[in-house]
Amino acid sequence: MTVNAAYATLETRHRRLSAIRGAQAILGWDQSVIMPTGSNEDRAEQQATLSVLAHELQTAPDMGDLLAEAGAGGGLDDWQAANLREMRHHWAHASALPSDLVEAFSKACTRAEVIWREAKRTSDFALLKPALATVLDLTRRTGEAKGAVLGLTVYDALLDAYEPGGRAERVDAVFDELEAFLPALARTVMERQAALGALLPLVGPFAVEAQKRLGLEMMKAVGFDFDKGRLDVSAHPFTGGTPDDIRITTRYDETDFARALMGVLHETGHAMYEAGLPTAWRHQLVGGARGMTLHESQSLLLEMQACRGRPFIEWAAPRMAAAFGGTGPAWTAANIHRIYTTVKPDFVRVDADEVTYPLHVILRYRLERAMVAGDLRLEDLPGAWNEGMKRLLGIVPPTDTLGCLQDIHWPSGGWGYFPTYTLGAVAAAQLFAAAKLADPSIEPGLARGDFAPLFGWLRVNVHGVGSRLSTEGILVAATGAPLGVAAFRRHLESRYVGA
Amino acid sequence: MTVNAAYATLETRHRRLSAIRGAQAILGWDQSVIMPTGSNEDRAEQQATLSVLAHELQTAPDMGDLLAEAGAGGGLDDWQAANLREMRHHWAHASALPSDLVEAFSKACTRAEVIWREAKRTSDFALLKPALATVLDLTRRTGEAKGAVLGLTVYDALLDAYEPGGRAERVDAVFDELEAFLPALARTVMERQAALGALLPLVGPFAVEAQKRLGLEMMKAVGFDFDKGRLDVSAHPFTGGTPDDIRITTRYDETDFARALMGVLHETGHAMYEAGLPTAWRHQLVGGARGMTLHESQSLLLEMQACRGRPFIEWAAPRMAAAFGGTGPAWTAANIHRIYTTVKPDFVRVDADEVTYPLHVILRYRLERAMVAGDLRLEDLPGAWNEGMKRLLGIVPPTDTLGCLQDIHWPSGGWGYFPTYTLGAVAAAQLFAAAKLADPSIEPGLARGDFAPLFGWLRVNVHGVGSRLSTEGILVAATGAPLGVAAFRRHLESRYVGA
Repeated sequence: MTVNAAYATLETRHRRLSAIRGAQAILGWDQSVIMPTGSNEDRAEQQATLSVLAHELQTAPDMGDLLAEAGAGGGLDDWQAANLREMRHHWAHASALPSDLVEAFSKACTRAEVIWREAKRTSDFALLKPALATVLDLTRRTGEAKGAVLGLTVYDALLDAYEPGGRAERVDAVFDELEAFLPALARTVMERQAALGALLPLVGPFAVEAQKRLGLEMMKAVGFDFDKGRLDVSAHPFTGGTPDDIRITTRYDETDFARALMGVLHETGHAMYEAGLPTAWRHQLVGGARGMTLHESQSLLLEMQACRGRPFIEWAAPRMAAAFGGTGPAWTAANIHRIYTTVKPDFVRVDADEVTYPLHVILRYRLERAMVAGDLRLEDLPGAWNEGMKRLLGIVPPTDTLGCLQDIHWPSGGWGYFPTYTLGAVAAAQLFAAAKLADPSIEPGLARGDFAPLFGWLRVNVHGVGSRLSTEGILVAATGAPLGVAAFRRHLESRYVGA
Repeated sequence: MTVNAAYATLETRHRRLSAIRGAQAILGWDQSVIMPTGSNEDRAEQQATLSVLAHELQTAPDMGDLLAEAGAGGGLDDWQAANLREMRHHWAHASALPSDLVEAFSKACTRAEVIWREAKRTSDFALLKPALATVLDLTRRTGEAKGAVLGLTVYDALLDAYEPGGRAERVDAVFDELEAFLPALARTVMERQAALGALLPLVGPFAVEAQKRLGLEMMKAVGFDFDKGRLDVSAHPFTGGTPDDIRITTRYDETDFARALMGVLHETGHAMYEAGLPTAWRHQLVGGARGMTLHESQSLLLEMQACRGRPFIEWAAPRMAAAFGGTGPAWTAANIHRIYTTVKPDFVRVDADEVTYPLHVILRYRLERAMVAGDLRLEDLPGAWNEGMKRLLGIVPPTDTLGCLQDIHWPSGGWGYFPTYTLGAVAAAQLFAAAKLADPSIEPGLARGDFAPLFGWLRVNVHGVGSRLSTEGILVAATGAPLGVAAFRRHLESRYVGA
């Protein structure tokens, strides 16, 4: 079989799109890590131009015809057919929006982000409200326009941009189940941990150079390929770049190495997913990461499932002690494992442990759905936030800085993103359980710092699939079941209450 | 007056082109400074895609009509008219070449560069010859195609790409005059320097951190704006990035700080030119640097004219001593000035002093003109090179590594570039002499590390003109005369033989 000409043309165009997006990823990394502060406008101009060029390519007038011809033309194997499906999906998202809406939305988000920084600093929700109202209005119009084309509700159309195929109905089912046991589980865990008495703190200062060396040592153990990636410093850690040029960032705190180290491992999980994507499809959509749920599942699988687990800590603890010259009972695997598995309700999502984290996400998901639907007015957000915190976590933030102003997602237009954090955590548990069942050498591997068995399984069952299957398709093929809460619950109960 | 619609459209397109080229400049810097070694292919794909997008924009089918309409449409002020002239010129260069020639040339150069590295390593000219012959053939075809459109000879069409308006006839006049006195002057200087006895070496090691601090201190004194630029390390120092995000690089040698420091000042001269370009025309051709002659004149004006001069060295010497804890007679301004003005023939151009450097360039210029014209066969290049070295510098390289294989320019397709180095040196002397005459506070300023008077004059007379005038136009307006050798000769005679 030879692929049809329309499909071949589409592949060429998407190869270009991939290169433009890759360039943008490197420029974005540079902006966060390297760029002088006075170069913002210059970089914004570059990024805007590349976005416009990509959008013009993506929505060229003949794209609809080419996609139809490629579908009718035949001659496609499984990968090519899946690639064409992804092209259609991306095109539907991109072409659904009139360009004046895209521009208005982009400007509104840039503006609201700036105001948000000030509002967060001064805990002044009223300051943010008008700009946030504009973002919400344009978000709703975006969801409506996409929904009309994709045949989805407004919220599902927003969610679909981060998690292709993700639907609120499925999210509700998972989140309802989590909400049914997590608050009680968290209380139980906290009681048990309190009964164990105080844990021994690791006392610094921990030199940045030593932290960096340790982080690099752990990344090497995991299997990160430094021939195709780097570790650097930025204010907000992230994984950027491209699958062949992966840029991980972290930030160091001389009083606390443990958190930054786990942050590096978290980002390394993202990086290993990118690096493991099918190389034969590097510059095509079908070769890309499946969506934010699976992406987060890979960071959390490495961080929460593997590296906060006792087997890995047994191997890592003496290495941590050696890195900082630590001695005594605080540096035992048992104490370090306690540090890494402490459960404690916190006002701030990014500081939350794995037991309480989903409750933060459930709160945001419920609130953003209500706001998008018009069932919650913006002026009622702070109150609704605090009520939700009280109900789910039993604590009420003393300020909006520690409450509804803490996250950048809403002012920056990322509505529909939040649920993927917890869907990812749930998927991570399900995949890790299946992996250990399939290959009994995985857990003993972790106990000697050998991640090869784990990533051997993930390469075949998750990373190497790219976007050939849907998220659910990948989970079913890899674990025998669609996304469900059972493995996550078992994991938490086993780790935290020894059940 | 309102500008005509065609012109406005052209400005919008060139703003896009500028943003794409800016993105490419940052990606190029990243490749030299930051990028992991295994990411080459990925980056090549990004750069090739951006080049294609820029070329498509630059040679869009309606460009010829738009340029004609914009010219006929009227309503343009001086800057806009000059901008349109530059647009025409760039379009003529870009559209002169059939795309298969562009692609074949690009591939041939990439291939020849790779072979050149090996040939240089093993001093094997025969290894390079076939690949270089292909590059030369395609270079000639490029010059022919451009020459036919621009009404220029083949060599002038090549030169014009680096030095718009540059013509071999003018280069010959300048180079003939230089050749008439430089070899004799170099011999005289060497005799005089030999008579002074051995200079005192600065003995290291010089810690990289201290070198970096000193380089940054000197860049600050010069007036480099670190809010819009950086200093980093790369294998081959260069100035990259954009006028609002300038990326200087250097390389450090722990046994010799003096060379790297002067290298930093050289690149800072390039950077100051970029930073001083007219901000109102940032993303238009008329706001860009005029050409390689003026660019090199700005780096050499700072390095050779200002910073190797005795007034600046008087100020800088104690700072150098303080940076490395240097004491004793080796660290006096007199001795350091001798170090920075030593004349000695060298096989290698990049190691040459300012007296002998033009002789290296004259050799290359004569040889490349002969090869382009078909008057010198490639197999005769090594012999012709060595004869030229003997005649101009009195030395014969023992190997082709130190001879005709030393530079990347020919294998990488940079035919027509070499003369701009020496045209720049000559222009630097002419501009510096005119500046000192116009503002007597410039030289006393340098003696106290104050570059504000010098750059005040350069901003108005060179940098801020951008590409509104031609190179000769800028020189005439700034110095009262077109490019001539007189000031350069006076400078050398005054500095080296006290004439």
